[in-house]
Amino acid sequence: MSLQSPHTSIRFALAQLDFLVGDIPGNTALMMAQAVHARDELKADAIIFPELSLTGYPPEDLLLRPSLERRVQAAVEQLKTIQGITLVFGLPEQRENGLHNAAWVIRDGQCLARYAKHQLPNHEVFDELRYFVAGTGATVFELHGMRIGLTICEDIWHSGPARAAKEAGAELLININASPFHVGKAAERLGVVGERACELDLPILYCNVVGGQDELVFDGGSFALQASGEVAMQAPLFSAGLHVVDVDVATRHISSSTQARLPDRHESIYQALVLALRDYVTKSGFKGVLLGLSGGIDSALTLAIACDALGASRVRAVMMPYHYTADISRNDAAEQATRLGVHYSSLPIVAMVEAFTNTLSETFAGLGADKTEENLQARSRGVLLMAISNKLGYLVLPTGNKSEMSVGYATLYGDMAGGFAVLKDVPKVEVFELCRWRNAQARAAGEADIVPQRVIDRPPSAELAPDQKDEDSLPPYPALDEILRRYIECDESAHDIIAAGFDAEQVNHVLRLVDISEHKRRQSAVGPRISRRGFGKDRRYPIVNGWKIGD
Amino acid sequence: MSLQSPHTSIRFALAQLDFLVGDIPGNTALMMAQAVHARDELKADAIIFPELSLTGYPPEDLLLRPSLERRVQAAVEQLKTIQGITLVFGLPEQRENGLHNAAWVIRDGQCLARYAKHQLPNHEVFDELRYFVAGTGATVFELHGMRIGLTICEDIWHSGPARAAKEAGAELLININASPFHVGKAAERLGVVGERACELDLPILYCNVVGGQDELVFDGGSFALQASGEVAMQAPLFSAGLHVVDVDVATRHISSSTQARLPDRHESIYQALVLALRDYVTKSGFKGVLLGLSGGIDSALTLAIACDALGASRVRAVMMPYHYTADISRNDAAEQATRLGVHYSSLPIVAMVEAFTNTLSETFAGLGADKTEENLQARSRGVLLMAISNKLGYLVLPTGNKSEMSVGYATLYGDMAGGFAVLKDVPKVEVFELCRWRNAQARAAGEADIVPQRVIDRPPSAELAPDQKDEDSLPPYPALDEILRRYIECDESAHDIIAAGFDAEQVNHVLRLVDISEHKRRQSAVGPRISRRGFGKDRRYPIVNGWKIGD
Repeated sequence: MSLQSPHTSIRFALAQLDFLVGDIPGNTALMMAQAVHARDELKADAIIFPELSLTGYPPEDLLLRPSLERRVQAAVEQLKTIQGITLVFGLPEQRENGLHNAAWVIRDGQCLARYAKHQLPNHEVFDELRYFVAGTGATVFELHGMRIGLTICEDIWHSGPARAAKEAGAELLININASPFHVGKAAERLGVVGERACELDLPILYCNVVGGQDELVFDGGSFALQASGEVAMQAPLFSAGLHVVDVDVATRHISSSTQARLPDRHESIYQALVLALRDYVTKSGFKGVLLGLSGGIDSALTLAIACDALGASRVRAVMMPYHYTADISRNDAAEQATRLGVHYSSLPIVAMVEAFTNTLSETFAGLGADKTEENLQARSRGVLLMAISNKLGYLVLPTGNKSEMSVGYATLYGDMAGGFAVLKDVPKVEVFELCRWRNAQARAAGEADIVPQRVIDRPPSAELAPDQKDEDSLPPYPALDEILRRYIECDESAHDIIAAGFDAEQVNHVLRLVDISEHKRRQSAVGPRISRRGFGKDRRYPIVNGWKIGD
Repeated sequence: MSLQSPHTSIRFALAQLDFLVGDIPGNTALMMAQAVHARDELKADAIIFPELSLTGYPPEDLLLRPSLERRVQAAVEQLKTIQGITLVFGLPEQRENGLHNAAWVIRDGQCLARYAKHQLPNHEVFDELRYFVAGTGATVFELHGMRIGLTICEDIWHSGPARAAKEAGAELLININASPFHVGKAAERLGVVGERACELDLPILYCNVVGGQDELVFDGGSFALQASGEVAMQAPLFSAGLHVVDVDVATRHISSSTQARLPDRHESIYQALVLALRDYVTKSGFKGVLLGLSGGIDSALTLAIACDALGASRVRAVMMPYHYTADISRNDAAEQATRLGVHYSSLPIVAMVEAFTNTLSETFAGLGADKTEENLQARSRGVLLMAISNKLGYLVLPTGNKSEMSVGYATLYGDMAGGFAVLKDVPKVEVFELCRWRNAQARAAGEADIVPQRVIDRPPSAELAPDQKDEDSLPPYPALDEILRRYIECDESAHDIIAAGFDAEQVNHVLRLVDISEHKRRQSAVGPRISRRGFGKDRRYPIVNGWKIGD
């Protein structure tokens, strides 16, 4: 057996798993089962788990709970009962100078090595300096004749920690991660880690978490790089699994049969949204999901994603027509629901809107119609959906997109009502692209369009007033989305954006709308982050805010 | 004139001001006007502004905007035009190694000294390591023959920075602050800073911000301490103003005629809520506020605070009765509104609830009544209030308290609808106390009770079902609030709380309710933080969460 004989190669299993944040006993049980599987079925010498695998990532203020240390210690004791395979895993470790984001190596009940993360990210979505003290010094341990260095996630984005491991004698580097997705992130990682491998002449095993956690999507995509930076193994994105690599002890050459294709932009976004929704619903224990299907493209895409995430049997769609709902909208909604096989019903909102309007008639006497009446429609729909949610235990999905969230074209407690906003970080232009991409997939599989073509072709309208079109009061979506991207993701000013060729009046109007809508976003449902800057932990703006757009 | 003659004493004005976050030009103008006033009217030699006075505190991600540096520089140039008085102020300062939370001293167009904060808080409500790099080294400057050291806020809570200033020759220390309120904070500050003064034999001038900013309330309460730690000047809490101290150059003795009384617990909470609401409404530009007045104690207290903050003419109250609304509730609501002189109307919700119920009858066929029907009442009220808000430009105030927020006894998009939740961090028992305190104030002034006594005496009920009482499904409020305080503010476990003598079943029930209500709190309005841990920036819990209560 490999444990006794001299090793010419070492087999590692990279455990790209989906953990439940806070559930230390459950995560420990998952790790133990996978370790036994890796040992017995995959004949692995070692199994590598991601960053903070014991707690899931990010545990946030659960890290402040006094029993954390006791729970982690109990979990480690359990892991130590596993025999015949080396475990590399992540855990919060209390030391004399504070809590560390640590990696441990254990085998046959012994702790072979411990490492504490040096580079604690405290930017974008990360708050690690709220909880952790930075580690110092390299950690290198020996396994079957090979000296192996350890680093954690952000460490590899800097040159110091890997270099320290190399200087301490590492012949191979293991980097464990909880690295969230954004568009293009997988390629970025390969670039950065490849550079590190090259510069240090060090093969690197990169193991990442997979799964959704509130607004964050962890895409997995674990990989192994030769010392040349060449990709030796690429695990798939967005799915859990163990991925095996063999490292030749003498040459340090890595071989693996796992060579997954990296999905393109649209596929990666779509899969990220599916995974995020599935995990949110499943981990929270909802029976299913429920949404208002308007005949428009946002709800059509949300419905498609929900069906792909959960199966049609766990999805309900409700059309809630009013006077301004076009027949074409009713027909398209019904057609899509029928095609996908979801439970579908139609609940007109006329009676509620009338009841509200009558009740308010005296209060509003002498005042003209404005957005109030539109919001009454949206809010009557929100209340209906929430009532069905309360009665049946289905989670309501708001269907608004990032463009609307940005400029505040959404009604608080109306179309914003719900628990998980699938398209919250997806700009409108991307919504169209994703529908086309999903339809192309269906067609390639010989199936009918998932989103009726007419829904894609019609000009977007909120249908809250007669003959209303979104672009009546906003720039065309391609221009709007580019203005928003520059302002929100790139921190460009009105001045910069106008200088790039956009209409000054439109830019000032759009940026002003973004600024005054912060209070709405603050009360919005969480939704999966797919961009470099979403409306979540990575954009922390004051509501009361006297900053003037301009320069 | 004092500038030419040799100084035997130096006069400082501590500028306890209310800034608008992000409004650098506006804050600069305020500082310049106050500097001129201090020089000309108060005959001050120096004026001391609080931490980050130029930007307001906390500027959050506005600090990431590229034009920040340019705007700050322009503001500094303006401040340099002020002649004949020394200005000490706070600003974000870009240096080669990053952005610093800095203090500058300028006089007659010259920068006399610069200091960068050493201790950057990144715990509780603070995120300073997201933005700033820590400074090193002491800063001491000379003014009229006295050597003065500079530190910033959190610095004084540690021994290092003040000691470094002392060792660099400081005879007096200026500490500029943006220190938020919680109950008892003013006394805590005096304790900590007093200890620092004593230990270093150093008189200290402590200048704090005043005002509300989203969830944070800055209480001001600036002070000056003799080298013995004795209080030489105490500015009032919760109000803006300049406060003068004279420091004898030879003896370093501080004299001042400002000796404000520190308010007690109830008064300080009440005033904090009034200031927070006033600033939120005023700085956001709302015409006034609007709330649902139920005849219960939470809305009664919210109404009292709103009137004290804005005046009755800017406050509207709406009673929205249903079948379960007792006559006594209608009468008490009307009586309080009449007493306070606010606009009052009654809008029954029967028609809306019936319209919703009828519309949903087929969907709900065969299913019994549950919380759904209660939520329909709450949500019909929420929609009515939001419609009035939309039409009239009044901000809706949700009236829920911290106890309800904790256990999720509140309806999303129903009674939680609104923009600023005044009682969000006030436990139910404290709600009663505050009503009694406010009534006692009124009686002492020879006025009628602000909150009708019967509202205080009746057992609390949501009146969403026949004969409903809050305590039917929860422990009595004194026990509930203590369980919640231990769990939320002190991180005690179920085990700890039970060991302290509380009923095990109740504790487990309550803690479970807290944990499963995170999704509601995440969509709640912001509200003023008055405790050591509110439901805002200082409690960051995952929504999807597998942590089990227990140990």
